[in-house]
Parts: sequence; structure tokens; C-alpha cells
Amino acid sequence: MADAATTLDFEALGERIGAILRRGGLSDLHARALARVIAAGERDGAKSHGIYRIEGCLRTLKAGKVSPDAVPDLVDDGSGIIRVLAGGAFSPAAFALGVPRLAERARTHGLAALVLNDCVHFSALWPEVEALADEGLAALALCPSYATVAPVGGTRPLLGTNPFAFAWPRPDGPPYVFDFATSVAARGEIELHRRAGRPLPEGWAIDEDGAPTTDPAAALAGAMLPFGGHKGSAISTMVELLAGAMIGDLTSRGALDALGTTTLAPRHGELILAFSPERFAAGRPGDPFAAGESLFAAILAQGARLPSQRRFAARRSSEREGIALTADEVAMLDRLETLGLDAVS
Amino acid sequence: MADAATTLDFEALGERIGAILRRGGLSDLHARALARVIAAGERDGAKSHGIYRIEGCLRTLKAGKVSPDAVPDLVDDGSGIIRVLAGGAFSPAAFALGVPRLAERARTHGLAALVLNDCVHFSALWPEVEALADEGLAALALCPSYATVAPVGGTRPLLGTNPFAFAWPRPDGPPYVFDFATSVAARGEIELHRRAGRPLPEGWAIDEDGAPTTDPAAALAGAMLPFGGHKGSAISTMVELLAGAMIGDLTSRGALDALGTTTLAPRHGELILAFSPERFAAGRPGDPFAAGESLFAAILAQGARLPSQRRFAARRSSEREGIALTADEVAMLDRLETLGLDAVS
Repeated sequence: MADAATTLDFEALGERIGAILRRGGLSDLHARALARVIAAGERDGAKSHGIYRIEGCLRTLKAGKVSPDAVPDLVDDGSGIIRVLAGGAFSPAAFALGVPRLAERARTHGLAALVLNDCVHFSALWPEVEALADEGLAALALCPSYATVAPVGGTRPLLGTNPFAFAWPRPDGPPYVFDFATSVAARGEIELHRRAGRPLPEGWAIDEDGAPTTDPAAALAGAMLPFGGHKGSAISTMVELLAGAMIGDLTSRGALDALGTTTLAPRHGELILAFSPERFAAGRPGDPFAAGESLFAAILAQGARLPSQRRFAARRSSEREGIALTADEVAMLDRLETLGLDAVS
Repeated sequence: MADAATTLDFEALGERIGAILRRGGLSDLHARALARVIAAGERDGAKSHGIYRIEGCLRTLKAGKVSPDAVPDLVDDGSGIIRVLAGGAFSPAAFALGVPRLAERARTHGLAALVLNDCVHFSALWPEVEALADEGLAALALCPSYATVAPVGGTRPLLGTNPFAFAWPRPDGPPYVFDFATSVAARGEIELHRRAGRPLPEGWAIDEDGAPTTDPAAALAGAMLPFGGHKGSAISTMVELLAGAMIGDLTSRGALDALGTTTLAPRHGELILAFSPERFAAGRPGDPFAAGESLFAAILAQGARLPSQRRFAARRSSEREGIALTADEVAMLDRLETLGLDAVS
């Protein structure tokens, strides 16, 4: 990048972020787990989940809405459900604790589930499904968020942006991965339109009275809409049921009611499913991964793209040349490290 | 209905359909299994999956593209994967064989999968996810179809209409259920536009050169598009991977290549996942089904609808007043029963 003030490798950036988070009061376990996820976002050019997120984590910490040091507790009754009780701390350490057992159980049973309960979420889901693809497993991850999305035909926020992520392992490179909000757009995109004074595309949002709007401010006061009409609305509802109601944790409505704001990271649960393609294909003709490659080749041969390719290109560039930070970004990191929780309101 | 020539109850209609299918050469096992599924479609007012489907089943049978009598074979290694090898017969008997074991395993492990291999598909997926909801389980079902849908950004058919169905049990009535194609529209809807001489809505399809089209004939020669842009395209790709590649069965491309036509029912596999909410919520505060009801009440309180409500209303009406058939429909059943395979080309 032309305006890069400095470049750091992944480990060095992670140490920098970890130091800030420890200074903010996070235990070493959580500081390390968050730092890896945030550094991965920055490395992949996923700026909205990169170092930009540090302030939000610190704000949530300062507001007392996340435990700085709860030790995640793994509950395993030998079934297909591995549960990690996060105790109100951030999710990454809980996920990291559960992954090896989830992977082992998926290989034994063919499929298994990891339930995270009572955790505070700020991260994307792609680092999680990618971690399972690295184990040779296909994975699905879903969670609620807080109520900012109206069901199709409705008038008020009820559903969350409810991300839905999937990964499929590929033999010669990063996995097939998608991770998207089940709302038409992320809330941050509406905020960006507001700041730029640009109207929203049709179909993104409704105002406080439930009427369609292209005014970003009216949309932020009203509700976003699900992607894909009634189909997306149904999928978002499914996320509330499977990754909220079913796992004995909060739905997006409950998460917002408990927190009272959308400016801090929400607390709720998460559901991750892992599948062993080797086990599912056992005894059948052909190789499941070769079949996946044929499909991807056919998609690319049409000129269509696979999801996450821009992110993987940024990752390759970061691995080759380091992760570039601008002078403003370096100044932000300096400020956060110096001031700790005093840096945030 | 004003033009009803006759009304039959569910059992009587099922017997009528079963007799036609036996006359067409299906074994008693398969005739009964198909008849139940077809009668359920008719009962629920889901006309596109009702008695209209009988001719297609007979055509597939006459073309030698489905086994009339293969006995489904259940393979259970004690893991979370229950497999039924359908031997090239229609899917409903294979599904029915697998369900009790799937339900038992989901209750034991918390979650389990039913894989159907080598089966010919013509039915909707809602009867399947509803059967699992009747067991108190949440369920997801997915399968490829044949290549009629282009990936977003692509130009040619590669993905199927790839249905995606979900059910969640409700204590006091039929479950929360959705079952939809991951294409914008079903192929049958495009055919209906062609017959009516009406242009398609924008965004449904592309022509043979990959250019957007609203001409139904050009769309049928070209490709349909996924719902919801790149998100729907990604979900459809996931269906190909999980319910095709992973289970050692055909993708939509392979199914079309094997069959050579979209006028007969395709042969491929299917993946059904079952989850025990009791197990997933065990040890957690609150009741998962009560949480689901709160969500549904909040959706309805906004004036939004739950999916499948029209179908359930038709079911209640059919249960009260019988399933109404028009004179044309009765004549069709008579003709099929008299002529057997000679009734179809």
C-alpha cells in the first residue's frame, strides 16, 4: 500500500494487539485469543473485523458487559454435542477450547456440534469454519446477534443480522468459505451511507413506521431487512431457533433487551456443526474432495467467482509483504496501548 | 371448492394413487410410500407436488430411469450417520426406512444425519422435515436436483434448484416449516409464464449467452438464477457439496449428465440432519420450545407471516371436508389407472 506507515507480520501484529487488550484488563488467555482473530481480520484485508474492532472490545469491557477473565469450561458427555460455557467472556477462547474435541468427535461420529453458551461476540465466523476446514472437516457456524432486522412483512427489529458461515476443505489451498449476514447489508454499511450522505439501495431497510426507506438515518431508527425476501427471512429465523432457542441461549431480541444498546458487543450463544466428508463418503464411489474440486472448476470456468477470494488474495499479500498499517492506524494502536480503557468512552 | 367433482379423505386418495402406481409397475412398498407423499401434497393444496406428479413418476418408470422394486438397505455402523442405499428406486421408501433410526440416534447423540444414496427424487422435502418434527426433533433437509441454475456471475446451468427445508417442532400444532428452492423461482413457474405468454420478473434468469432475460423461452434454454444474489448462490453451492460431493453421490451437473433430460425425475442423494432440542438445551435455563413460541408470537404480532401457513390451512380444510378433486383430476386418475404406463409417453 502506498500510504503504509509500517508493516508487521502476523505474529508481531498479534503481540501488539494482545498487549493492548491485556492493558485493557483482559486475562492473558482472552487477550491472546482475541488478538489472533483480530490480526487475522487485518491480515485478510477484512478491515471491519480487523484492528478497528479493538475499541469496541475495550468499550464493552469498560461497560462491564464482558467478563475479562472467565475461564471457559468444556462440558462433554460423550454425545455429539460438545458444550463450552464461556461464563460471559468473549467467544474466541471458548471456541479455541472446543475445537479439538469437536474435530475428534466429528471424526468419530461422522458429525458433531459445538455449542458456545454465554459468550460475547464481536468476531466474524470465517476464522472458525476455516479452523475446522484445516482439520479436514466441513463446517457450518451460525449465531444470532441483536435485534436490528425485521422479518419480511413485519415492521420492527426482531431478528439479528444472524451470520451464516460455511467451509469446505480444499486439498491445495485455502478452503471454500462463505460468511455472510442474513440481512441484506451489514449495519456498518448503512452507517457508511449515512456518513457519506448517500441514499441506500431499495430494499435494504424500513423506517420506524415499517415503510420502505432509502434514508440511512431512518433505516438506523427503523429496521434492516433480510436478504432474499421471505427465503432469507426464514433462514434468519432458523438461525434464531437453532443457535438461540435450541441451545438454551438468547435470541437476538433477548440479547438486545439484556444489553440495551447496539453500540457494545452482544452476549448470546453460537452453534458450530462439523462434518467428516471421509465418514459421509465411506463406502461410496469417488472422492468427496475431488468432487468438490470439479464443482469449483466448473464455477470458475464460467467466469463466476468463489466467495472469499479477495480475502485470500489479501492474505497471500500479507504473508509475502507483511500486514500494512497506515500512520493513522499505528497512532490508534499507540493511543490504545498508552491509555488502555481511558482511550474509550 | 365450487368445481369439486368429488372429495376423498387422505386414506382413500392414497389408496387410489397407490393402485395407479402398482398398475404402473411399482412394488407395493414403493407404491404405498409414494402414494402417501403425493396424497399429502394434494391434501395440503401443494398442487405442484400432488396428483400432478403421478404422470412424471410413471414416465420415469417407463423410461427405465427408476427401479420399480429395489428394497432399500439401511447401513448403520453405530455412528451419527444412518445411511440408506435406495438402489435406484424412488426416495420416499428409503426415507421412511431411515427415519426411526435417525430419530433414535439424534436423541442418543444429540444430532444425527440420514444419508439417502442412489435414489430418484420427485417429492418436496417438507413431508420429511415434518416427519422429524413429529418426533420432537428439529430437522434440515437438502438435496441437489439437476443443473438448471447458473452460479451468480456465471453463464450456464451448473447448480440445481437445490431445495433447502427446515422444521422446528411446536407444542400445539404443526411445526414451523419452510421448504424452498435456492433458485429465485421453481422451473415450473417459468414454464407457467411461458404458457401464459407473460414476461418473467427481472433477475429470474439468463439466456443461452448468459445475458439477463425476461423471456421465459430464452430462460428455459438458458439458466435460472439463485435467489438472493451471491448469498443464495453460495448456499446452493453448499447444498451441492454437503448433499452431493460429501455423501458420495451426484451433484446436479452429474445428475443431469446421467439422465440427459430435465423431463424425468433425477437420481442423486439427499442429506437430512436431525437435532434434539432437549439434548441441546440440557442443563440450560428455559425451555427451547417456549423460546421458539415467543419468537413466533413476536413475528406474528408484527403482521408478518410464518412460512407454510397457507399449506396448513389447506390441510385443516382437507381434514374437515375431504380433499376436493375436480372432474378433470378425477378423469386423469381414471385414465392413469386404466392405461397404466400406456397413459404416458
